[in-house]
Amino acid sequence: MIKNIAITGGTHGNELTGVYLVKKWQKNPALVKRSNFETITKLMNLQAIKEVRRYVDQDLNRSFGLSELGNDELENYEVKLAKELNSELGEKGSEESKVDFIVDLHTTTANMGLSIVVSNPSKITWRAIAYLCKMEPALKVYRWKGDIENAFVDSMAPHGFAIEVGAVPQGVLRADLFLQTEALIYHLLDYVEKENNGDELNISDEVEIYDHEVLVDYPRDEERDIVAMVHQDRQDKDFTLIEKGDPLFLTLENETINYDGEPRYTIFVNEAAYYEKGFAMTLAEKKMLKI
Amino acid sequence: MIKNIAITGGTHGNELTGVYLVKKWQKNPALVKRSNFETITKLMNLQAIKEVRRYVDQDLNRSFGLSELGNDELENYEVKLAKELNSELGEKGSEESKVDFIVDLHTTTANMGLSIVVSNPSKITWRAIAYLCKMEPALKVYRWKGDIENAFVDSMAPHGFAIEVGAVPQGVLRADLFLQTEALIYHLLDYVEKENNGDELNISDEVEIYDHEVLVDYPRDEERDIVAMVHQDRQDKDFTLIEKGDPLFLTLENETINYDGEPRYTIFVNEAAYYEKGFAMTLAEKKMLKI
Repeated sequence: MIKNIAITGGTHGNELTGVYLVKKWQKNPALVKRSNFETITKLMNLQAIKEVRRYVDQDLNRSFGLSELGNDELENYEVKLAKELNSELGEKGSEESKVDFIVDLHTTTANMGLSIVVSNPSKITWRAIAYLCKMEPALKVYRWKGDIENAFVDSMAPHGFAIEVGAVPQGVLRADLFLQTEALIYHLLDYVEKENNGDELNISDEVEIYDHEVLVDYPRDEERDIVAMVHQDRQDKDFTLIEKGDPLFLTLENETINYDGEPRYTIFVNEAAYYEKGFAMTLAEKKMLKI
Repeated sequence: MIKNIAITGGTHGNELTGVYLVKKWQKNPALVKRSNFETITKLMNLQAIKEVRRYVDQDLNRSFGLSELGNDELENYEVKLAKELNSELGEKGSEESKVDFIVDLHTTTANMGLSIVVSNPSKITWRAIAYLCKMEPALKVYRWKGDIENAFVDSMAPHGFAIEVGAVPQGVLRADLFLQTEALIYHLLDYVEKENNGDELNISDEVEIYDHEVLVDYPRDEERDIVAMVHQDRQDKDFTLIEKGDPLFLTLENETINYDGEPRYTIFVNEAAYYEKGFAMTLAEKKMLKI
Protein backbone atom coordinates (compact mmCIF):
# COMPACT_ATOMS: atom_id res chain seq x y z
CA MET A 1 0.00 0.00 0.00
CA ILE A 2 1.39 3.35 -1.06
CA LYS A 3 0.25 5.87 1.55
CA ASN A 4 1.47 9.00 -0.24
CA ILE A 5 3.36 10.40 -3.20
CA ALA A 6 5.28 13.66 -3.48
CA ILE A 7 5.40 15.54 -6.79
CA THR A 8 8.37 17.88 -6.61
CA GLY A 9 9.12 20.78 -8.96
CA GLY A 10 11.74 23.47 -9.12
CA THR A 11 14.58 21.28 -7.88
CA HIS A 12 16.38 23.25 -10.58
CA GLY A 13 15.14 26.82 -10.47
CA ASN A 14 15.35 27.42 -14.23
CA GLU A 15 13.30 24.36 -15.24
CA LEU A 16 9.91 26.00 -15.33
CA THR A 17 7.60 23.12 -16.27
CA GLY A 18 7.79 21.57 -12.82
CA VAL A 19 7.63 24.95 -11.12
CA TYR A 20 4.38 25.94 -12.83
CA LEU A 21 2.79 22.49 -12.63
CA VAL A 22 3.31 22.48 -8.87
CA LYS A 23 1.94 26.03 -8.63
CA LYS A 24 -1.09 24.91 -10.64
CA TRP A 25 -1.73 21.91 -8.38
CA GLN A 26 -1.22 23.90 -5.20
CA LYS A 27 -3.96 26.22 -6.45
CA ASN A 28 -6.20 23.30 -7.54
CA PRO A 29 -5.32 20.33 -5.31
CA ALA A 30 -8.33 18.36 -6.56
CA LEU A 31 -6.47 17.74 -9.82
CA VAL A 32 -3.94 15.50 -8.08
CA LYS A 33 -6.20 14.07 -5.39
CA ARG A 34 -7.03 10.37 -5.59
CA SER A 35 -9.14 8.11 -3.40
CA ASN A 36 -6.68 5.96 -1.51
CA PHE A 37 -3.47 7.87 -0.92
CA GLU A 38 -2.24 11.37 -0.21
CA THR A 39 -0.60 13.58 -2.86
CA ILE A 40 1.98 16.13 -1.72
CA THR A 41 3.16 18.88 -4.07
CA LYS A 42 6.33 20.76 -3.26
CA LEU A 43 8.39 23.58 -4.73
CA MET A 44 11.92 22.61 -3.87
CA ASN A 45 14.57 25.31 -4.42
CA LEU A 46 12.74 28.58 -3.76
CA GLN A 47 15.79 30.84 -3.98
CA ALA A 48 16.93 29.32 -7.28
CA ILE A 49 13.37 29.58 -8.65
CA LYS A 50 13.33 33.26 -7.70
CA GLU A 51 16.64 33.84 -9.46
CA VAL A 52 15.70 31.56 -12.42
CA ARG A 53 18.97 29.70 -11.92
CA ARG A 54 19.70 25.99 -11.69
CA TYR A 55 21.05 26.38 -8.16
CA VAL A 56 22.54 28.92 -5.79
CA ASP A 57 25.65 27.18 -4.41
CA GLN A 58 25.53 23.58 -5.63
CA ASP A 59 23.20 21.30 -7.59
CA LEU A 60 20.32 20.36 -5.25
CA ASN A 61 19.72 17.22 -7.28
CA ARG A 62 23.16 15.95 -6.31
CA SER A 63 22.80 16.85 -2.62
CA PHE A 64 20.95 13.87 -1.16
CA GLY A 65 23.87 11.53 -0.58
CA LEU A 66 23.75 9.99 2.89
CA SER A 67 27.27 11.15 3.72
CA GLU A 68 26.43 14.73 2.72
CA LEU A 69 23.11 14.73 4.60
CA GLY A 70 24.95 13.54 7.70
CA ASN A 71 27.83 16.00 7.44
CA ASP A 72 27.38 18.96 9.79
CA GLU A 73 30.38 20.85 8.47
CA LEU A 74 28.98 21.52 4.99
CA GLU A 75 26.87 24.64 5.21
CA ASN A 76 25.97 26.16 1.85
CA TYR A 77 22.43 26.98 0.70
CA GLU A 78 21.57 23.70 -1.02
CA VAL A 79 23.25 21.53 1.63
CA LYS A 80 21.07 23.12 4.30
CA LEU A 81 18.02 22.92 2.05
CA ALA A 82 18.61 19.23 1.32
CA LYS A 83 18.69 18.50 5.06
CA GLU A 84 15.41 20.37 5.58
CA LEU A 85 13.76 18.62 2.64
CA ASN A 86 15.01 15.26 3.87
CA SER A 87 13.41 15.92 7.26
CA GLU A 88 10.16 16.71 5.50
CA LEU A 89 10.11 14.12 2.71
CA GLY A 90 12.66 11.50 3.94
CA GLU A 91 14.28 10.54 6.11
CA LYS A 92 16.59 8.86 3.70
CA GLY A 93 18.19 5.83 5.30
CA SER A 94 15.78 5.70 8.23
CA GLU A 95 13.42 2.80 8.89
CA GLU A 96 10.29 4.80 8.34
CA SER A 97 9.98 7.07 5.32
CA LYS A 98 7.56 9.99 5.48
CA VAL A 99 6.91 9.72 1.74
CA ASP A 100 6.60 6.45 -0.19
CA PHE A 101 7.05 7.66 -3.75
CA ILE A 102 8.76 10.79 -5.14
CA VAL A 103 8.46 11.95 -8.73
CA ASP A 104 10.76 14.90 -9.43
CA LEU A 105 9.92 17.11 -12.41
CA HIS A 106 12.73 18.26 -14.69
CA THR A 107 13.26 19.68 -18.15
CA THR A 108 16.26 19.44 -20.45
CA THR A 109 17.63 21.43 -23.36
CA ALA A 110 18.29 18.08 -25.04
CA ASN A 111 15.69 16.72 -27.44
CA MET A 112 14.61 13.89 -25.13
CA GLY A 113 10.87 14.18 -25.60
CA LEU A 114 9.00 12.72 -22.66
CA SER A 115 11.36 10.56 -20.65
CA ILE A 116 12.05 9.04 -17.26
CA VAL A 117 15.42 8.95 -15.55
CA VAL A 118 15.47 6.20 -12.97
CA SER A 119 18.01 4.71 -10.59
CA ASN A 120 15.67 3.06 -8.10
CA PRO A 121 15.39 -0.73 -8.51
CA SER A 122 12.18 -1.21 -6.47
CA LYS A 123 9.35 -3.33 -7.82
CA ILE A 124 6.78 -0.54 -7.36
CA THR A 125 8.99 1.94 -9.20
CA TRP A 126 9.25 -0.37 -12.19
CA ARG A 127 5.59 -1.38 -12.20
CA ALA A 128 4.75 2.34 -12.27
CA ILE A 129 7.14 2.81 -15.21
CA ALA A 130 5.69 -0.17 -17.07
CA TYR A 131 2.21 1.26 -16.59
CA LEU A 132 3.29 4.67 -17.88
CA CYS A 133 4.96 3.11 -20.95
CA LYS A 134 1.67 1.34 -21.68
CA MET A 135 -0.29 4.57 -21.39
CA GLU A 136 2.26 6.75 -23.22
CA PRO A 137 4.01 4.63 -25.85
CA ALA A 138 6.35 7.50 -26.80
CA LEU A 139 7.79 7.58 -23.27
CA LYS A 140 11.48 6.67 -23.06
CA VAL A 141 13.15 5.17 -19.99
CA TYR A 142 16.77 5.94 -19.19
CA ARG A 143 18.27 3.88 -16.39
CA TRP A 144 20.98 5.97 -14.81
CA LYS A 145 23.95 4.43 -13.01
CA GLY A 146 26.20 6.98 -11.37
CA ASP A 147 29.65 6.03 -10.14
CA ILE A 148 28.72 7.17 -6.68
CA GLU A 149 25.75 6.93 -4.36
CA ASN A 150 22.42 8.05 -5.79
CA ALA A 151 22.05 11.60 -4.47
CA PHE A 152 18.98 12.61 -6.47
CA VAL A 153 15.85 14.09 -4.91
CA ASP A 154 13.85 10.92 -5.55
CA SER A 155 16.41 8.87 -3.61
CA MET A 156 14.85 10.16 -0.37
CA ALA A 157 11.88 7.81 -0.85
CA PRO A 158 11.68 4.02 -1.24
CA HIS A 159 10.18 4.44 -4.73
CA GLY A 160 10.51 7.07 -7.41
CA PHE A 161 12.16 8.58 -10.45
CA ALA A 162 12.62 11.85 -12.30
CA ILE A 163 10.71 12.99 -15.35
CA GLU A 164 12.79 14.78 -17.99
CA VAL A 165 11.09 16.57 -20.89
CA GLY A 166 12.72 18.43 -23.74
CA ALA A 167 13.91 20.15 -25.73
CA VAL A 168 13.11 23.30 -23.80
CA PRO A 169 15.52 26.12 -22.97
CA GLN A 170 16.25 26.98 -19.36
CA GLY A 171 13.91 29.70 -18.17
CA VAL A 172 11.22 28.86 -20.73
CA LEU A 173 7.78 27.32 -20.32
CA ARG A 174 6.66 25.37 -23.40
CA ALA A 175 2.94 24.63 -23.45
CA ASP A 176 3.29 21.36 -25.39
CA LEU A 177 5.76 19.86 -22.92
CA PHE A 178 3.82 21.26 -19.95
CA LEU A 179 0.72 19.40 -21.16
CA GLN A 180 2.63 16.18 -21.78
CA THR A 181 4.20 16.24 -18.34
CA GLU A 182 0.85 16.99 -16.73
CA ALA A 183 -0.80 14.05 -18.51
CA LEU A 184 1.98 11.71 -17.44
CA ILE A 185 1.53 12.68 -13.78
CA TYR A 186 -2.19 11.94 -13.96
CA HIS A 187 -1.38 8.49 -15.35
CA LEU A 188 1.03 7.95 -12.49
CA LEU A 189 -1.57 8.92 -9.90
CA ASP A 190 -4.06 6.59 -11.58
CA TYR A 191 -1.50 3.82 -11.38
CA VAL A 192 -0.98 4.30 -7.66
CA GLU A 193 -4.72 4.34 -7.05
CA LYS A 194 -5.23 1.14 -9.03
CA GLU A 195 -2.22 -0.56 -7.48
CA ASN A 196 -3.50 0.30 -4.02
CA ASN A 197 -6.91 -1.09 -4.99
CA GLY A 198 -5.37 -4.31 -6.17
CA ASP A 199 -6.81 -3.81 -9.65
CA GLU A 200 -5.61 -6.03 -12.48
CA LEU A 201 -3.29 -3.72 -14.42
CA ASN A 202 -2.16 -5.96 -17.28
CA ILE A 203 1.32 -4.50 -17.01
CA SER A 204 4.02 -6.01 -19.20
CA ASP A 205 6.69 -7.94 -17.30
CA GLU A 206 9.41 -6.21 -19.26
CA VAL A 207 10.29 -2.63 -20.10
CA GLU A 208 12.46 -1.29 -22.91
CA ILE A 209 15.20 0.76 -21.31
CA TYR A 210 18.23 2.75 -22.32
CA ASP A 211 20.85 1.53 -19.88
CA HIS A 212 23.50 4.11 -18.98
CA GLU A 213 27.03 3.18 -19.88
CA VAL A 214 29.34 6.17 -20.01
CA LEU A 215 29.63 9.97 -20.22
CA VAL A 216 31.25 11.59 -23.28
CA ASP A 217 32.90 14.95 -22.66
CA TYR A 218 33.48 17.76 -25.15
CA PRO A 219 37.01 18.13 -26.50
CA ARG A 220 38.61 20.78 -24.27
CA ASP A 221 41.79 22.81 -24.07
CA GLU A 222 44.24 22.89 -21.17
CA GLU A 223 42.03 25.44 -19.41
CA ARG A 224 39.03 23.09 -19.69
CA ASP A 225 37.29 25.40 -22.17
CA ILE A 226 35.46 23.53 -24.92
CA VAL A 227 37.13 23.51 -28.35
CA ALA A 228 34.38 21.64 -30.21
CA MET A 229 30.59 21.53 -30.38
CA VAL A 230 28.19 18.65 -30.73
CA HIS A 231 28.19 18.02 -34.49
CA GLN A 232 25.17 19.39 -36.33
CA ASP A 233 24.29 15.84 -37.47
CA ARG A 234 24.21 14.59 -33.86
CA GLN A 235 22.34 17.61 -32.42
CA ASP A 236 18.79 16.70 -31.28
CA LYS A 237 19.52 12.98 -31.77
CA ASP A 238 18.59 11.74 -28.33
CA PHE A 239 17.71 8.05 -27.90
CA THR A 240 19.24 7.61 -31.34
CA LEU A 241 21.82 5.06 -32.46
CA ILE A 242 25.40 6.19 -33.07
CA GLU A 243 27.86 3.96 -34.90
CA LYS A 244 31.56 4.00 -35.66
CA GLY A 245 32.30 6.75 -38.20
CA ASP A 246 29.22 8.87 -37.46
CA PRO A 247 29.96 12.58 -36.93
CA LEU A 248 30.17 13.34 -33.19
CA PHE A 249 31.79 16.76 -32.71
CA LEU A 250 32.63 19.76 -34.87
CA THR A 251 35.70 21.66 -33.73
CA LEU A 252 35.63 25.46 -33.66
CA GLU A 253 37.91 25.20 -36.72
CA ASN A 254 35.09 23.32 -38.50
CA GLU A 255 36.73 19.90 -38.46
CA THR A 256 34.51 16.89 -37.88
CA ILE A 257 35.44 14.36 -35.19
CA ASN A 258 33.80 10.99 -35.80
CA TYR A 259 32.55 8.52 -33.23
CA ASP A 260 34.90 5.62 -32.74
CA GLY A 261 33.16 3.09 -30.53
CA GLU A 262 30.60 0.33 -30.33
CA PRO A 263 27.02 1.06 -31.47
CA ARG A 264 25.24 2.90 -28.67
CA TYR A 265 22.36 5.34 -28.13
CA THR A 266 23.09 9.00 -27.38
CA ILE A 267 21.17 10.72 -24.57
CA PHE A 268 21.28 14.19 -22.99
CA VAL A 269 22.85 15.51 -26.19
CA ASN A 270 24.10 19.08 -25.64
CA GLU A 271 22.27 19.70 -22.36
CA ALA A 272 23.15 23.22 -21.16
CA ALA A 273 23.64 22.25 -17.51
CA TYR A 274 26.18 19.56 -18.33
CA TYR A 275 28.83 21.77 -19.89
CA GLU A 276 30.07 22.48 -16.37
CA LYS A 277 29.58 18.87 -15.27
CA GLY A 278 31.88 17.78 -18.08
CA PHE A 279 29.82 15.90 -20.60
CA ALA A 280 28.35 16.55 -24.02
CA MET A 281 26.13 13.47 -24.02
CA THR A 282 25.83 10.04 -22.49
CA LEU A 283 25.93 6.66 -24.20
CA ALA A 284 23.50 3.88 -23.39
CA GLU A 285 22.58 0.39 -24.50
CA LYS A 286 19.00 -0.39 -25.42
CA LYS A 287 17.67 -3.53 -23.81
CA MET A 288 14.58 -5.20 -22.43
CA LEU A 289 14.51 -5.27 -18.64
CA LYS A 290 12.53 -7.95 -16.79
CA ILE A 291 10.65 -6.34 -13.94
CA MET B 1 35.34 54.79 -46.32
CA ILE B 2 34.81 52.43 -43.40
CA LYS B 3 38.09 52.35 -41.52
CA ASN B 4 37.20 49.55 -39.10
CA ILE B 5 34.49 47.22 -37.85
CA ALA B 6 34.06 45.65 -34.43
CA ILE B 7 32.54 42.19 -34.08
CA THR B 8 31.38 41.87 -30.50
CA GLY B 9 30.35 38.65 -28.72
CA GLY B 10 29.33 37.76 -25.19
CA THR B 11 27.40 40.97 -24.58
CA HIS B 12 25.10 38.44 -22.91
CA GLY B 13 27.25 35.87 -21.12
CA ASN B 14 24.92 32.93 -21.77
CA GLU B 15 24.68 33.41 -25.53
CA LEU B 16 27.55 31.19 -26.55
CA THR B 17 27.58 31.52 -30.34
CA GLY B 18 29.10 34.99 -30.22
CA VAL B 19 31.43 34.05 -27.40
CA TYR B 20 32.97 31.13 -29.27
CA LEU B 21 33.03 32.86 -32.65
CA VAL B 22 35.04 35.70 -31.13
CA LYS B 23 37.36 33.22 -29.41
CA LYS B 24 37.82 31.46 -32.75
CA TRP B 25 38.67 34.68 -34.56
CA GLN B 26 41.00 35.89 -31.82
CA LYS B 27 42.90 32.63 -32.30
CA ASN B 28 42.79 32.91 -36.12
CA PRO B 29 42.58 36.63 -36.97
CA ALA B 30 43.22 35.95 -40.65
CA LEU B 31 39.66 34.65 -40.95
CA VAL B 32 38.24 38.14 -40.40
CA LYS B 33 41.04 40.17 -41.98
CA ARG B 34 40.23 42.00 -45.19
CA SER B 35 42.32 44.24 -47.43
CA ASN B 36 41.08 47.76 -46.80
CA PHE B 37 39.85 48.09 -43.22
CA GLU B 38 40.62 46.83 -39.73
CA THR B 39 38.53 44.14 -37.98
CA ILE B 40 38.32 44.26 -34.21
CA THR B 41 36.94 41.28 -32.26
CA LYS B 42 35.87 41.78 -28.68
CA LEU B 43 34.46 39.67 -25.84
CA MET B 44 32.21 42.09 -24.04
CA ASN B 45 30.95 40.91 -20.64
CA LEU B 46 33.74 38.73 -19.26
CA GLN B 47 32.24 38.22 -15.82
CA ALA B 48 28.84 37.20 -17.22
CA ILE B 49 30.55 34.87 -19.72
CA LYS B 50 32.43 33.25 -16.83
CA GLU B 51 29.20 32.77 -14.90
CA VAL B 52 27.22 31.75 -18.04
CA ARG B 53 24.63 34.38 -17.14
CA ARG B 54 23.00 37.08 -19.23
CA TYR B 55 24.42 39.79 -16.99
CA VAL B 56 25.73 40.40 -13.48
CA ASP B 57 23.84 43.52 -12.31
CA GLN B 58 21.94 44.84 -15.32
CA ASP B 59 21.56 44.08 -19.03
CA LEU B 60 24.73 45.34 -20.77
CA ASN B 61 22.81 45.63 -24.02
CA ARG B 62 20.58 48.28 -22.44
CA SER B 63 23.47 50.21 -20.86
CA PHE B 64 24.66 52.45 -23.67
CA GLY B 65 22.21 55.29 -23.30
CA LEU B 66 23.95 58.68 -23.35
CA SER B 67 22.42 59.74 -20.06
CA GLU B 68 23.59 56.53 -18.37
CA LEU B 69 27.07 56.73 -19.87
CA GLY B 70 27.35 60.28 -18.57
CA ASN B 71 26.02 59.55 -15.09
CA ASP B 72 28.82 59.22 -12.54
CA GLU B 73 26.53 58.14 -9.72
CA LEU B 74 25.53 54.78 -11.23
CA GLU B 75 28.20 52.30 -10.30
CA ASN B 76 27.21 48.69 -10.86
CA TYR B 77 29.25 46.16 -12.87
CA GLU B 78 27.66 46.69 -16.28
CA VAL B 79 27.41 50.48 -15.91
CA LYS B 80 31.15 50.63 -15.31
CA LEU B 81 31.79 48.13 -18.09
CA ALA B 82 29.67 50.11 -20.56
CA LYS B 83 31.73 53.23 -19.84
CA GLU B 84 34.98 51.33 -20.41
CA LEU B 85 33.68 49.78 -23.63
CA ASN B 86 32.45 53.15 -24.84
CA SER B 87 35.94 54.60 -24.30
CA GLU B 88 37.36 51.75 -26.35
CA LEU B 89 34.75 51.39 -29.11
CA GLY B 90 32.85 54.75 -28.96
CA GLU B 91 32.75 57.42 -27.94
CA LYS B 92 29.05 57.54 -28.43
CA GLY B 93 27.94 61.08 -29.08
CA SER B 94 31.41 62.42 -29.72
CA GLU B 95 32.50 63.90 -33.03
CA GLU B 96 35.01 61.19 -33.79
CA SER B 97 34.09 57.54 -33.33
CA LYS B 98 36.88 55.04 -32.74
CA VAL B 99 34.88 52.35 -34.53
CA ASP B 100 32.78 52.91 -37.65
CA PHE B 101 30.63 49.78 -37.64
CA ILE B 102 29.62 47.43 -34.81
CA VAL B 103 27.96 44.06 -35.30
CA ASP B 104 26.91 42.52 -31.98
CA LEU B 105 26.36 38.75 -31.89
CA HIS B 106 23.36 37.37 -30.04
CA THR B 107 21.29 34.23 -29.80
CA THR B 108 17.67 33.77 -28.82
CA THR B 109 15.55 30.94 -27.47
CA ALA B 110 12.89 32.06 -29.96
CA ASN B 111 12.75 30.31 -33.31
CA MET B 112 13.99 33.33 -35.26
CA GLY B 113 16.41 31.55 -37.57
CA LEU B 114 19.08 33.91 -38.84
CA SER B 115 17.94 37.48 -38.25
CA ILE B 116 19.09 41.04 -37.82
CA VAL B 117 17.78 43.46 -35.21
CA VAL B 118 18.44 46.99 -36.30
CA SER B 119 17.66 50.48 -35.01
CA ASN B 120 20.29 52.47 -36.85
CA PRO B 121 18.95 54.43 -39.86
CA SER B 122 22.31 55.07 -41.54
CA LYS B 123 22.73 54.47 -45.26
CA ILE B 124 25.77 52.23 -44.76
CA THR B 125 23.90 50.13 -42.20
CA TRP B 126 21.06 49.52 -44.64
CA ARG B 127 23.26 48.89 -47.64
CA ALA B 128 25.06 46.25 -45.56
CA ILE B 129 21.70 44.69 -44.66
CA ALA B 130 20.52 44.73 -48.27
CA TYR B 131 23.75 43.00 -49.31
CA LEU B 132 23.33 40.35 -46.60
CA CYS B 133 19.72 39.71 -47.64
CA LYS B 134 20.93 39.16 -51.19
CA MET B 135 23.62 36.70 -50.04
CA GLU B 136 21.40 34.91 -47.48
CA PRO B 137 17.81 34.97 -48.73
CA ALA B 138 16.54 33.31 -45.51
CA LEU B 139 17.79 36.25 -43.44
CA LYS B 140 15.01 38.22 -41.69
CA VAL B 141 15.29 41.88 -40.73
CA TYR B 142 13.53 43.21 -37.64
CA ARG B 143 13.54 46.97 -37.28
CA TRP B 144 13.34 47.73 -33.58
CA LYS B 145 11.86 50.94 -32.22
CA GLY B 146 12.20 51.28 -28.48
CA ASP B 147 10.28 53.92 -26.59
CA ILE B 148 13.48 55.32 -25.25
CA GLU B 149 16.93 56.11 -26.56
CA ASN B 150 18.72 53.29 -28.32
CA ALA B 151 21.03 51.91 -25.64
CA PHE B 152 22.27 48.82 -27.49
CA VAL B 153 25.93 47.95 -27.92
CA ASP B 154 25.84 48.78 -31.63
CA SER B 155 24.58 52.29 -30.84
CA MET B 156 28.15 53.26 -29.89
CA ALA B 157 29.12 53.36 -33.56
CA PRO B 158 27.74 55.39 -36.49
CA HIS B 159 26.73 52.14 -38.25
CA GLY B 160 25.70 48.72 -37.04
CA PHE B 161 23.15 46.19 -35.90
CA ALA B 162 22.77 43.01 -33.88
CA ILE B 163 22.57 39.49 -35.26
CA GLU B 164 20.06 37.22 -33.51
CA VAL B 165 20.03 33.49 -34.24
CA GLY B 166 17.74 30.86 -32.81
CA ALA B 167 16.23 28.79 -31.48
CA VAL B 168 19.06 27.94 -29.13
CA PRO B 169 18.86 27.60 -25.35
CA GLN B 170 20.91 29.86 -23.14
CA GLY B 171 24.22 28.23 -22.29
CA VAL B 172 24.20 26.02 -25.41
CA LEU B 173 26.34 26.11 -28.54
CA ARG B 174 24.52 24.75 -31.60
CA ALA B 175 26.84 23.93 -34.49
CA ASP B 176 24.27 24.68 -37.20
CA LEU B 177 23.59 28.20 -35.92
CA PHE B 178 27.29 28.79 -35.20
CA LEU B 179 28.07 28.03 -38.86
CA GLN B 180 25.23 30.23 -40.14
CA THR B 181 26.33 33.17 -38.01
CA GLU B 182 29.94 32.71 -39.08
CA ALA B 183 28.97 32.71 -42.77
CA LEU B 184 26.91 35.87 -42.32
CA ILE B 185 29.86 37.69 -40.77
CA TYR B 186 32.10 36.76 -43.68
CA HIS B 187 29.49 38.18 -46.05
CA LEU B 188 29.42 41.37 -44.01
CA LEU B 189 33.20 41.71 -44.14
CA ASP B 190 33.10 41.13 -47.90
CA TYR B 191 30.49 43.85 -48.18
CA VAL B 192 32.64 46.38 -46.34
CA GLU B 193 35.65 45.50 -48.45
CA LYS B 194 33.67 45.92 -51.68
CA GLU B 195 31.97 49.11 -50.50
CA ASN B 196 35.34 50.58 -49.60
CA ASN B 197 36.64 49.58 -53.02
CA GLY B 198 33.74 51.27 -54.72
CA ASP B 199 32.72 47.99 -56.38
CA GLU B 200 29.33 47.76 -58.08
CA LEU B 201 27.28 45.75 -55.59
CA ASN B 202 23.92 45.48 -57.39
CA ILE B 203 22.15 45.96 -54.08
CA SER B 204 18.39 46.27 -54.14
CA ASP B 205 17.05 49.70 -53.24
CA GLU B 206 14.50 48.18 -50.89
CA VAL B 207 14.58 45.64 -48.08
CA GLU B 208 11.74 43.56 -46.66
CA ILE B 209 11.53 44.37 -42.98
CA TYR B 210 9.44 43.45 -39.98
CA ASP B 211 8.74 46.82 -38.42
CA HIS B 212 8.33 46.77 -34.64
CA GLU B 213 4.98 47.89 -33.35
CA VAL B 214 4.30 46.71 -29.81
CA LEU B 215 5.24 44.32 -27.02
CA VAL B 216 2.74 41.70 -25.83
CA ASP B 217 3.12 40.61 -22.21
CA TYR B 218 2.09 37.30 -20.63
CA PRO B 219 -1.09 37.31 -18.60
CA ARG B 220 0.11 37.79 -15.00
CA ASP B 221 -1.31 37.75 -11.49
CA GLU B 222 -1.16 40.58 -8.98
CA GLU B 223 2.35 39.49 -7.98
CA ARG B 224 3.48 39.76 -11.63
CA ASP B 225 3.90 35.99 -11.88
CA ILE B 226 2.82 34.56 -15.24
CA VAL B 227 -0.51 32.72 -15.31
CA ALA B 228 -0.39 31.62 -18.94
CA MET B 229 2.10 30.28 -21.46
CA VAL B 230 2.58 31.00 -25.13
CA HIS B 231 -0.01 28.75 -26.77
CA GLN B 232 1.42 25.57 -28.31
CA ASP B 233 0.10 26.66 -31.72
CA ARG B 234 2.01 29.96 -31.51
CA GLN B 235 5.25 28.49 -30.10
CA ASP B 236 8.14 28.65 -32.61
CA LYS B 237 6.06 30.85 -34.93
CA ASP B 238 8.47 33.74 -35.30
CA PHE B 239 8.10 36.04 -38.33
CA THR B 240 4.70 34.40 -38.77
CA LEU B 241 1.34 36.06 -39.30
CA ILE B 242 -1.17 36.12 -36.45
CA GLU B 243 -4.80 37.05 -37.06
CA LYS B 244 -7.83 37.73 -34.94
CA GLY B 245 -9.03 34.49 -33.35
CA ASP B 246 -5.69 32.66 -33.55
CA PRO B 247 -4.60 30.98 -30.29
CA LEU B 248 -2.15 33.23 -28.43
CA PHE B 249 -1.81 32.00 -24.83
CA LEU B 250 -2.76 28.89 -22.86
CA THR B 251 -3.53 29.55 -19.22
CA LEU B 252 -2.17 27.23 -16.55
CA GLU B 253 -5.77 26.01 -16.29
CA ASN B 254 -5.54 24.95 -19.96
CA GLU B 255 -7.81 27.64 -21.33
CA THR B 256 -6.95 29.18 -24.67
CA ILE B 257 -6.74 32.95 -25.03
CA ASN B 258 -7.12 34.06 -28.63
CA TYR B 259 -5.48 36.99 -30.35
CA ASP B 260 -7.80 39.92 -30.77
CA GLY B 261 -6.04 42.46 -32.94
CA GLU B 262 -5.07 43.44 -36.44
CA PRO B 263 -3.04 41.00 -38.54
CA ARG B 264 0.60 41.24 -37.49
CA TYR B 265 3.78 39.14 -37.39
CA THR B 266 4.99 37.63 -34.10
CA ILE B 267 8.68 37.92 -33.21
CA PHE B 268 10.77 36.92 -30.19
CA VAL B 269 8.10 34.37 -29.27
CA ASN B 270 8.79 32.97 -25.78
CA GLU B 271 12.35 34.28 -25.45
CA ALA B 272 13.69 33.26 -22.03
CA ALA B 273 15.32 36.60 -21.25
CA TYR B 274 12.12 38.55 -21.80
CA TYR B 275 10.01 36.97 -19.06
CA GLU B 276 11.61 39.45 -16.66
CA LYS B 277 11.43 42.29 -19.16
CA GLY B 278 7.69 41.77 -19.40
CA PHE B 279 6.89 40.45 -22.83
CA ALA B 280 5.99 37.13 -24.38
CA MET B 281 6.49 38.27 -27.97
CA THR B 282 6.50 41.39 -30.09
CA LEU B 283 4.21 42.30 -32.96
CA ALA B 284 5.47 43.78 -36.20
CA GLU B 285 4.24 44.83 -39.61
CA LYS B 286 5.88 43.45 -42.69
CA LYS B 287 6.76 46.08 -45.25
CA MET B 288 9.24 47.04 -47.94
CA LEU B 289 11.65 49.76 -46.83
CA LYS B 290 13.28 52.05 -49.39
CA ILE B 291 16.93 52.43 -48.54
